[in-house]
Amino acid sequence: MDPDSVAKAFVDHYYSTFDTNRAGLANLYQESSMLNFEGQKYQGAQNITAKLTGAQNITAKLTGLPFQQCKHQINTVDCQPSGPAGGMLVFVSGNLSLPGEQHALKFSQMFHLIPTPQGSFYVQNDIFRLNYA
Amino acid sequence: MDPDSVAKAFVDHYYSTFDTNRAGLANLYQESSMLNFEGQKYQGAQNITAKLTGAQNITAKLTGLPFQQCKHQINTVDCQPSGPAGGMLVFVSGNLSLPGEQHALKFSQMFHLIPTPQGSFYVQNDIFRLNYA
Repeated sequence: MDPDSVAKAFVDHYYSTFDTNRAGLANLYQESSMLNFEGQKYQGAQNITAKLTGAQNITAKLTGLPFQQCKHQINTVDCQPSGPAGGMLVFVSGNLSLPGEQHALKFSQMFHLIPTPQGSFYVQNDIFRLNYA
Repeated sequence: MDPDSVAKAFVDHYYSTFDTNRAGLANLYQESSMLNFEGQKYQGAQNITAKLTGAQNITAKLTGLPFQQCKHQINTVDCQPSGPAGGMLVFVSGNLSLPGEQHALKFSQMFHLIPTPQGSFYVQNDIFRLNYA
């Protein structure tokens, strides 16, 4: 697959997992992963007491968001290769629909994907922002 | 400086250069640099005839945009370290004001910054998108 198709497939998988089985996102992060969510940083062992890995800390944040149901609609997906090791930068814009909200929220999100020995990718870097109107 | 301050300083420099001396952006890109601008890709030697480097091709695109004056207003700057070599991912959201346009356009942009031997950074990856309302 060409890089744009790989990026699109990752994005489809990521948001369908987010919208239907949010805890399953844990499989897409690793110990070293980092998340900036609306300006708050989550990474491994940041919660010193719980000694959470990046994947655990990030999944705890995402599954703990104050809405149970949501629906991401993707508007654009851009990608560029990154680094000698087959990494990829993916940049997404879209709309996020939440229960009880009449209007969808616009969002942008970027991922730095790193290849795994199994031929898949994990998310090393994840930055999410709502674009308020 | 801490990474957030470095990112903020880069972003301030980038957009003030864009708004006042757009051709000066050439100094922030290198031969290997890549730009996705509203879904169009610009990188080195993509224009085979002209044999432009990434910096030349990207600067030609940015200086050739169909507006001479513009003003970027930054709303958020997020950053994360990237890679063992001191790189940095920077994610920006803001408003872009154009001459003759009553309302500012919302935009999001990401940069992958790579350190130079001189102690500065250049832009290896640049992805820009307007967030249409």
